Amino acid sequence: METAGKVIKCKAAVTWEPNKPFSIEEVEVAPPKAHEVRIKMVATSICRSDYHATEGMFTNVKFPMIAGHEGAGVIESVGEGVTNIQPGDHVIPLFMPQCGECSCCQNPESNFCLKNDIINGRGLMADNTSRFSCKGKEIHNFLSTSTFTEYTVVDEISVVKIDSAARLDRACLVACGFSTGYGSAVNTAKVKPGTTCVVFGLGGVGLSTIIGCRAAGAKHIIGVDINADKFGKAKEVGATECINPLDYTKQIHEVITEMTKGGAHYSFECVGNVDTMTAAFMSCHFGFGTCVVVGVAPSASLLTFSPSLLMAGRALKGSTFGGWKSKDCVPQIVSDYMVNKFDLEPLVTNTMPLENINEGFELLRTGKSIRTVLMI
Amino acid sequence: METAGKVIKCKAAVTWEPNKPFSIEEVEVAPPKAHEVRIKMVATSICRSDYHATEGMFTNVKFPMIAGHEGAGVIESVGEGVTNIQPGDHVIPLFMPQCGECSCCQNPESNFCLKNDIINGRGLMADNTSRFSCKGKEIHNFLSTSTFTEYTVVDEISVVKIDSAARLDRACLVACGFSTGYGSAVNTAKVKPGTTCVVFGLGGVGLSTIIGCRAAGAKHIIGVDINADKFGKAKEVGATECINPLDYTKQIHEVITEMTKGGAHYSFECVGNVDTMTAAFMSCHFGFGTCVVVGVAPSASLLTFSPSLLMAGRALKGSTFGGWKSKDCVPQIVSDYMVNKFDLEPLVTNTMPLENINEGFELLRTGKSIRTVLMI
Repeated sequence: METAGKVIKCKAAVTWEPNKPFSIEEVEVAPPKAHEVRIKMVATSICRSDYHATEGMFTNVKFPMIAGHEGAGVIESVGEGVTNIQPGDHVIPLFMPQCGECSCCQNPESNFCLKNDIINGRGLMADNTSRFSCKGKEIHNFLSTSTFTEYTVVDEISVVKIDSAARLDRACLVACGFSTGYGSAVNTAKVKPGTTCVVFGLGGVGLSTIIGCRAAGAKHIIGVDINADKFGKAKEVGATECINPLDYTKQIHEVITEMTKGGAHYSFECVGNVDTMTAAFMSCHFGFGTCVVVGVAPSASLLTFSPSLLMAGRALKGSTFGGWKSKDCVPQIVSDYMVNKFDLEPLVTNTMPLENINEGFELLRTGKSIRTVLMI
Repeated sequence: METAGKVIKCKAAVTWEPNKPFSIEEVEVAPPKAHEVRIKMVATSICRSDYHATEGMFTNVKFPMIAGHEGAGVIESVGEGVTNIQPGDHVIPLFMPQCGECSCCQNPESNFCLKNDIINGRGLMADNTSRFSCKGKEIHNFLSTSTFTEYTVVDEISVVKIDSAARLDRACLVACGFSTGYGSAVNTAKVKPGTTCVVFGLGGVGLSTIIGCRAAGAKHIIGVDINADKFGKAKEVGATECINPLDYTKQIHEVITEMTKGGAHYSFECVGNVDTMTAAFMSCHFGFGTCVVVGVAPSASLLTFSPSLLMAGRALKGSTFGGWKSKDCVPQIVSDYMVNKFDLEPLVTNTMPLENINEGFELLRTGKSIRTVLMI
């Protein structure tokens, strides 16, 4: 059936209000307007930011909405003026757009785009309207992507074509978790060979950070988590040792400072908790340590520390989407995956149909999964 | 009179307890032990850290003490084992030592030395004793230097020889204020040509930061101070505009964000106040701005901000002594001064004898001086 130009009725996992289970609903997905594309989603994985967003921890997320931002699919149709992408192309929707024109896009040192919806939080297309409706109500999108649906519409600046030979149930991880962690090590921290790294939080992003640290030649990689069940996987991807803060009476930064004879060259916070951020900052070496904050904290939280930590020569950096300019870099990351520059298999612990999304979130909430891939 | 090997009785400005005026006293200065040198001080300027230290704002400063760390002089005698420096050499005492052996000294990205007394705060020589006494009491040193005295003794790792042709009443500024500010721009921030910089605090360090930003090719340099009397000098050394937060009802970071169309590439905090640090951090551009904290805050203060500032791609760095490895770099900075790579004259507003030190501090406290040089 020819669908281009028509409203598509399909299944999606709708979040009607914060902190409620997903409802599998029939939604209407309007055709793409100018400079938009409609994507038939094939696979999407579950990231902790989806969990926090549906929980209501981010104040700028609008409800009702269709969450999900770590997906991959095939172009169904394109709107007027879209020239670089056509129906049938395999694509990744980009939660960090790349408009190419704003002050951030034009700065080679930034991977932010001022047209992002992470901060702007409109939950709408660039023209301030939605393409989703359900039971007569407008449904917001999430991070310009919304992947927990059979079809989604995204702005042209928020999608990129990838090699059509890539497995979409693995390429979806490149859309957020893998790239975020890996890039925080190789781009943001610029980890040097022979150094010591500490990674707080051994979920999908933390493991990907370890993969990045190892790829960059780090000598010691210490994984930190309060769930020791995560240690096996962390060692599998490159951690040289793992520690559990609950096993010590001392503060964890003191334990790490002793273990590393003064602190790590680089520390990474992949949890999204301000106390862990402070611990990560205090775990990096006096005089030259760099702490990269990767985890996203709840909107109202505040980070507090003594400025003497800075004066002593440490640096604190933030990293979103691993410092990658999304349109420029995502196709290459997918190609690197295809030539086995890194392995995504250890990150995928579960696969299930979209309909089982609530089960997938429960596995995440209870620490029993790294990445659950939802097949659509 | 041959003084080598003997105790020297001389004048010094002693701070007996916090928040009291300096007392000009006759002190005894013991001869240098092994790996130490005794210096006849010629000139020392007054830095705000001397003020904060004598005020008691830094909890790890020991009293009674002889303050001062921005000085220059001539070697009077050297202890056993000192091979690179000899009597008659012109030198700068280094508040940031360079032992060459610790994990920081051996890291090319760090200019800290683990043998520093900034953090260690012993107020003593490397062997944990003092060379100063007065009225039968042991007097502590300050930051391994103590320059408010006719003679001082410092460890070999805390002194470097400079070109004997350099004016010591100008070279003393290289010992702290000038190098700290200038280096925070060229080393720590690595300011790039064509960028926008904002400098909070237009004292000696702030002006030196402006000189560094200009030398690095910044296009716009905005000076910020609540004392508009500082603006003339700031413009003289390179500020393209100056603003006073008291002239606005909006918060200063909002004013700067509007002026710069999104924020500065680099912001510098040269005050030592946590609220100004947060304002400086918020003044740098979303997505790529870097804030360098140069000012030293009181020991108990805490810096607080939303981690979303980091997530948006900003970086926060600390800089002490401008990122210069002291022994390696100070002689070259002095040589650069001698070939007019930069001008130190605008920084020196007052010159007076050491005996007038209380007057010099009063000028600093009341915002009427940039640097007062005390001639010894």
